[in-house]
Amino acid sequence: MEKVFASIITIGDELLIGQVIDTNSAWIAQELNKAGVTIKNRVAVGDVWEDIWAALDAESKKASIVLLTGGLGPTSDDITKPLLCEYFGGKMVLDAATLAHVTDIFERILKRPMIERNAKQAEVPDCCTVLLNERGTAPGMLFEKDGVLFISMPGVPHEMKWIMEHHVIPMIPKRFKTGIIKHKTLLTAGIGESFLAEMIKENEAALPSHIKLAYLPNYGMVRLRLTISGEPQNEAVLDKELDTHFNNLAAAVKDYLVVKEDIPMAEVVGQLLLNQHKTLSTAESCTGGYIAHLLTAKAGASAYFKGSVVSYANEIKGDLLDVSKETMETVGVVSEECVRKMAISARKLLKTDYSVAVSGIMGPGGETPEKPVGMVWMAVASENEVRAQVFHFRFDRKRNIELTANSALNMLRLLIVDNS
Amino acid sequence: MEKVFASIITIGDELLIGQVIDTNSAWIAQELNKAGVTIKNRVAVGDVWEDIWAALDAESKKASIVLLTGGLGPTSDDITKPLLCEYFGGKMVLDAATLAHVTDIFERILKRPMIERNAKQAEVPDCCTVLLNERGTAPGMLFEKDGVLFISMPGVPHEMKWIMEHHVIPMIPKRFKTGIIKHKTLLTAGIGESFLAEMIKENEAALPSHIKLAYLPNYGMVRLRLTISGEPQNEAVLDKELDTHFNNLAAAVKDYLVVKEDIPMAEVVGQLLLNQHKTLSTAESCTGGYIAHLLTAKAGASAYFKGSVVSYANEIKGDLLDVSKETMETVGVVSEECVRKMAISARKLLKTDYSVAVSGIMGPGGETPEKPVGMVWMAVASENEVRAQVFHFRFDRKRNIELTANSALNMLRLLIVDNS
Repeated sequence: MEKVFASIITIGDELLIGQVIDTNSAWIAQELNKAGVTIKNRVAVGDVWEDIWAALDAESKKASIVLLTGGLGPTSDDITKPLLCEYFGGKMVLDAATLAHVTDIFERILKRPMIERNAKQAEVPDCCTVLLNERGTAPGMLFEKDGVLFISMPGVPHEMKWIMEHHVIPMIPKRFKTGIIKHKTLLTAGIGESFLAEMIKENEAALPSHIKLAYLPNYGMVRLRLTISGEPQNEAVLDKELDTHFNNLAAAVKDYLVVKEDIPMAEVVGQLLLNQHKTLSTAESCTGGYIAHLLTAKAGASAYFKGSVVSYANEIKGDLLDVSKETMETVGVVSEECVRKMAISARKLLKTDYSVAVSGIMGPGGETPEKPVGMVWMAVASENEVRAQVFHFRFDRKRNIELTANSALNMLRLLIVDNS
Repeated sequence: MEKVFASIITIGDELLIGQVIDTNSAWIAQELNKAGVTIKNRVAVGDVWEDIWAALDAESKKASIVLLTGGLGPTSDDITKPLLCEYFGGKMVLDAATLAHVTDIFERILKRPMIERNAKQAEVPDCCTVLLNERGTAPGMLFEKDGVLFISMPGVPHEMKWIMEHHVIPMIPKRFKTGIIKHKTLLTAGIGESFLAEMIKENEAALPSHIKLAYLPNYGMVRLRLTISGEPQNEAVLDKELDTHFNNLAAAVKDYLVVKEDIPMAEVVGQLLLNQHKTLSTAESCTGGYIAHLLTAKAGASAYFKGSVVSYANEIKGDLLDVSKETMETVGVVSEECVRKMAISARKLLKTDYSVAVSGIMGPGGETPEKPVGMVWMAVASENEVRAQVFHFRFDRKRNIELTANSALNMLRLLIVDNS
């Protein structure tokens, strides 16, 4: 077994001025990990010749696979291709297969005339192996130098993913004898990182050196991840060992355990509903449809999610969800009375087994002396029961919306579990 | 003027196995840019002693400000603090002010007993200046070595942001004579990057060397960004120069220009509605509330956004949005007839001036021979007019949902513009 290291270099000024969030690196890291490759570094550099050059030098000393994304577009701010040509000592040539592919994309799919700029994308350094990019016009390129593989890919996520899946990942077992790296993750809710750490300190002390524990706090939840590494021929033993420690960990946190998988809260709720052949609706004020969006982010949600009334304006709460004028005028729309009514009405109107309703103040602004920013009332309803609870979050709008959605889904999860 | 460079080091295995997407770096980069600091590199390293050490060595050679985030939590997978202590040659001491702050958080806000692990967060290397973190228990720390500033912050975004805003950004003009860096960005929709490049090639050729142009394609839209840099005393001249080139650029792309700002499409629509005192509702099937979520992501949306019917199940389309059984059985729910009815009904039911409706197949799965994955019908309605259009997207579920939302909002934008 060799320990195989990779480094990821992302190229583009937009990464350094913060205009774009890099999601490519996380995806690449996940996929390489599954293939037994450890990521050593992730580096972002601007569209600057010397900086890209220096990153190639530095990362190829640390890793045997260097992946580059970005800087391959048809516009003149992209300097990566000429740089790679010079770095690996080649000259630019027209690649016939890529030209045919680019021409085909324009003729058959885009149905637009091709311009010279597009044809230029078929020019590649003669010292590279072209990795055909079925999803776009910029090809991937493979270079080799002193035993290190360099792979350059476009920055557009679905193009990069296609090249990774069809060229890079299949190449790894042919080139390297990788070890095994496996992760198991569980999700907890309603408890802070430090209290969790106290609760599992004996489990942590019992871990052998080839199993690592990590805490991943996020929006009112904490994920615990165990990572094991070892020789491929020991896979069965390693699996068993990982399972044992993982199950012990799950038992230690059982009061706060949501699920023994690395899936979002919305998916946990979806699975519960699916297993029980039950349906769900939402009535959302302050989250503005975000809970419904989370529930429908996964294909197949139509089996349990029927729909939602986003009642952002008070009159919609009255007209569609039957919240009385009196409630609105006396206790207001951020109140137990209001969310109970919203949940009950949504269940009835959308004819579902369960419903969830939220109403609160996400900020900035909108608070009153009694109702500060971050105050949210939530209710969940089933045929037999309505539960309501108030929460106080203390963050920015985006984070308050995330926390509200996850907390409401967790309330719903507990109701479904108790009702089954 | 000095050209001041900064590097960002993010610490945590979760970044290298792809479990977490790094949003901190983009935010930090934006803020430093505004303060006249250029980001040289962004590096992510794991919770590995030698790798963090090597990154400190390497980045401090390239930059005069090195920012670190992550690795400061109360759990034992965090090694950053002891490492910094050794790197800068100090010893750990208890910081009284931080201890008082941590104690206060537990007593007053969390209302939970503090455990030893929490108190330990008040221990810092004696060679650092503590940067109080009002938002959490892990303090920021400032170190100086050979003229380079090193600032270590927690990885939790709202804690990091607080420390940046209250300590780091105010420190920069006191320590450095930074130059000016300014950006102006415009948003286009409905045209590809290479065609845009053809359209503006003369503008591009006319740019002086201290103004850079960048193309930022994203979900059916392309942003064009001009960046100018220069001496602070020339600010007025630079501003004028940037404005001239920016306005010329906007004129060259006028047929595809959405807005001369760097704001999301939903915000452009929101501003139009706000200016015209008009209201909006959505009727969403395949986007599952995502358009409503985008519209309500910004505070103040209640001035123009009233609500939404998320009709994920067909019976909701019938019951609430009056789509006839006949429509569903003959042309189906992914049809012009269906979305026209959805838009008209939403406008009526939610009593708004405008409405937008979408129905399509986001995949994976769910397609029929006539209706492939990625096919979406959209309609927008005003008092006088209903427009419908079909789109074909060819990507994954997440991207299809994004593209659908942005395309629908763009259709709506054009309707509002034409109606005013």
